[in-house]
Amino acid sequence: MAGNATAISRLFDGQLRAVNAGLAMFAEAPIAHGASVTALDWRPPAEGDREVGLLLARLQDDPADPIGRTVAAANAEAVERLLAAQPLLVDIRPAHEALGLTDTRLLHSGPPIPWERMCGPVRGAIVGAILFEGWATSPDQAEALAGSGAIGFSPCHHHGAVGPMAGVISPSMPVVVVENAAGGTRAHATLNEGLGKVLRFGAYDASVLERLRWFRDVLGPTLSAALGASGPIDLRSLTGQALQMGDEGHNRNIAATSLFTRTLAPSIVRTADTATAAAVLDFLRGNDHFFLNLSMAACKSALDAAHGITGSSVVTAMSRNGVEFGIRLSGTGDRWFTSPVGVPDGLYFPGYGPDDANPDLGDSAITETFGIGGFAMAAAPAIVRFVGGTAADALELTRLMNRITLARNPAYALPSLAFAGTPTAIDARLVVDSGIAPVINTGIAHRQAGIGQIGAGITRAPLGCFAAGIGALASSLGLASAGVPAPATAAPGSGVTA
Amino acid sequence: MAGNATAISRLFDGQLRAVNAGLAMFAEAPIAHGASVTALDWRPPAEGDREVGLLLARLQDDPADPIGRTVAAANAEAVERLLAAQPLLVDIRPAHEALGLTDTRLLHSGPPIPWERMCGPVRGAIVGAILFEGWATSPDQAEALAGSGAIGFSPCHHHGAVGPMAGVISPSMPVVVVENAAGGTRAHATLNEGLGKVLRFGAYDASVLERLRWFRDVLGPTLSAALGASGPIDLRSLTGQALQMGDEGHNRNIAATSLFTRTLAPSIVRTADTATAAAVLDFLRGNDHFFLNLSMAACKSALDAAHGITGSSVVTAMSRNGVEFGIRLSGTGDRWFTSPVGVPDGLYFPGYGPDDANPDLGDSAITETFGIGGFAMAAAPAIVRFVGGTAADALELTRLMNRITLARNPAYALPSLAFAGTPTAIDARLVVDSGIAPVINTGIAHRQAGIGQIGAGITRAPLGCFAAGIGALASSLGLASAGVPAPATAAPGSGVTA
Repeated sequence: MAGNATAISRLFDGQLRAVNAGLAMFAEAPIAHGASVTALDWRPPAEGDREVGLLLARLQDDPADPIGRTVAAANAEAVERLLAAQPLLVDIRPAHEALGLTDTRLLHSGPPIPWERMCGPVRGAIVGAILFEGWATSPDQAEALAGSGAIGFSPCHHHGAVGPMAGVISPSMPVVVVENAAGGTRAHATLNEGLGKVLRFGAYDASVLERLRWFRDVLGPTLSAALGASGPIDLRSLTGQALQMGDEGHNRNIAATSLFTRTLAPSIVRTADTATAAAVLDFLRGNDHFFLNLSMAACKSALDAAHGITGSSVVTAMSRNGVEFGIRLSGTGDRWFTSPVGVPDGLYFPGYGPDDANPDLGDSAITETFGIGGFAMAAAPAIVRFVGGTAADALELTRLMNRITLARNPAYALPSLAFAGTPTAIDARLVVDSGIAPVINTGIAHRQAGIGQIGAGITRAPLGCFAAGIGALASSLGLASAGVPAPATAAPGSGVTA
Repeated sequence: MAGNATAISRLFDGQLRAVNAGLAMFAEAPIAHGASVTALDWRPPAEGDREVGLLLARLQDDPADPIGRTVAAANAEAVERLLAAQPLLVDIRPAHEALGLTDTRLLHSGPPIPWERMCGPVRGAIVGAILFEGWATSPDQAEALAGSGAIGFSPCHHHGAVGPMAGVISPSMPVVVVENAAGGTRAHATLNEGLGKVLRFGAYDASVLERLRWFRDVLGPTLSAALGASGPIDLRSLTGQALQMGDEGHNRNIAATSLFTRTLAPSIVRTADTATAAAVLDFLRGNDHFFLNLSMAACKSALDAAHGITGSSVVTAMSRNGVEFGIRLSGTGDRWFTSPVGVPDGLYFPGYGPDDANPDLGDSAITETFGIGGFAMAAAPAIVRFVGGTAADALELTRLMNRITLARNPAYALPSLAFAGTPTAIDARLVVDSGIAPVINTGIAHRQAGIGQIGAGITRAPLGCFAAGIGALASSLGLASAGVPAPATAAPGSGVTA
């Protein structure tokens, strides 16, 4: 005892230097007594949830443990498939043809949700799509039809597609066809409408429907013919260039849109009549976001290739339907793990504020899932500035995302980080272990149907759905008996949807 | 004496902390005796030239001195005119019309130089221009004609124009017409030919002449008609956007070229027949450097507005003819101050090296004179990487240029430097005082006529011509009697050309 006391007291002979992990208040007493304290940014794994924490420990890469070996090998395979992806834009086809949407089925963004629980902007977009398809002739009639059970609703993700914001796809809409030959996958997305009153933000007035008809009758067929003449366009190369030109591939797409337009313009001129070519080039000139939907489909084609690997904790989808935030893991099949979704931090157009905002919405977080968008913020400091941040904050966000991803994608180099690749392959284990939530760049829709966009900003994924995913992954590997609660209670408000 | 000795010895009682300015060896003794020494990056003003240093002191901003007041007010006026510039691309016209080149006169880059002293690439471009104009039918005949005295040679700068590399302009070539209404100036440049075998690098084979004929007969008239339909294009806005997209407006122009193409494409389609529109859009798609010449003319239109202010030490032109590097100051009229020019540090195409390189060449340093190009390197880390540097080096180069410029141009914001404006208005006093030479991004031509580009890189302006300019500015303000040597001997090899 005396010896111990002496040894301990010797600790205090010199200037005391301490490291504090966790609560800042632990450091107060030593600081008051003159010690220097270095604070570690540390949080308990799994937000302190003991059961999830124990499972997480069993799921770690461990050559001595069959489960640890399975997870490590599965994730290595997922990373390899993500890095090998080479998405090509091959065509633009009507959705009924490309997606097999032949009945009165409408697709929407995010995990599954019935009409009754859908948020305002998604309902607005569905009303618009029903009017556009001619299934009803007034908004009231369209709403009644939507609630009658006569219209089927499915997530875009269940049909090899993605849609920004409301993400509504109806049979007559043209969709881009992106082929990732390396992964044997095809992915699709609508054509981007531009800003202002647009269907994806829940607006459905005459101007919105007129644009959709022009997409169907002119823009889609014209771009399809131009692509037929030019051959496929390499979206990996275009996005790689754009990331060196201030785009991050989600909320900023002016570089990629300009490169795309410059690439395809000669073929458009050669395959369309003058008036049509000029109108299409006018539209492409006026829409700095045209490339967003191409970017989304490219990311989806890569992530689908990495999906379905038993034991993999790599996140293959993050998406929001305006009510719930949902994720899928490569190793847990078609299940969605969901948490309630919040309102993004953002900048609002004049006359609007957070009270008007719908919670976060859209499949566009597929870009972050693939490692661009918010994960490539270092490429696009202008976006951080938009919400009051600096170029240094942009670098910091990308560095933070490095901590929850397994690889850097050399095809997408970030100049301001010494040309390091984008953080790729989100590992749900790392998210749950560190408490670092994926960052997502997003638009903000008005909560009521029919109004449209009111701002844009940055948000973070909720953590609960990642914990739920880890629980299900553990179950799938025979670890269900470890006393883990059912995923629905792993985090309050989180759930699982088949 | 005893009191002084005590006071001095008290200096050494504690830990000695010293600041060393100048030679590093001064610090060696105190360091050997345990002192900590902070090294200041300091050099004697004017490279230690006493006479120039004394003049420099008299030219400093000083409200108590009439000369100091004149210089300060003149530079303030020059800065105001530079920041006010709003260059618009208004048309594309044949040089004989836009520049009044009606006889057998050819323009070239850099300060004046007779045929006998011209470098290989300029001679090559002159041979090409003579063949293109039909003044001779073989290269030998063209060379003989050029040396016969029958062809007049003038710098582009003497005709309100600028040309990259050899910068040769002949009467039939189309030139861009850039109007800076705020400054009442117009500036011109040829159309950019792209990379490979091109006239500006001294090549003149059949493919080069064919392209020039297509420029004259198709590209120039087509773009002119499109501009007539679209109205003027705001080059300040385009360049401002491009600097946020990885361009620096000199060696990297892919963003501005893409934005320009996307902006003008609809008008091209509406004013040209299909085959012509497609061919023009093909050319714009294939030439990532098309915007360079627009950028150069825009910078020239701004700098000409700031030229001719009595007492101003602001640099209004930096240019090279492949033999001499020349500058002009706002306050010294049409005189050129020159120094011998070196070979850039650069990266060479396979099969070539520094021994093949021509010394630095071209009017394109007008971009750096205006504060973009090498001065905006922070916008384009990809260029520094090209010669083995890092993104941090790119920031450092722009920060260094802040030390020799009088303003930051808010129209040209640099994202990676917290959206600070580009370093604008080079003050020859600051260059001479600090010994910090302006940085210039550049292409590298083969030293022999007829070969073309062999690399690209980064170079620094020689200091001698700035010292010569300061001497002449002092003379113009009545300080010639201060015992300053004639500018031609202010720095070895430097000279003055009217």
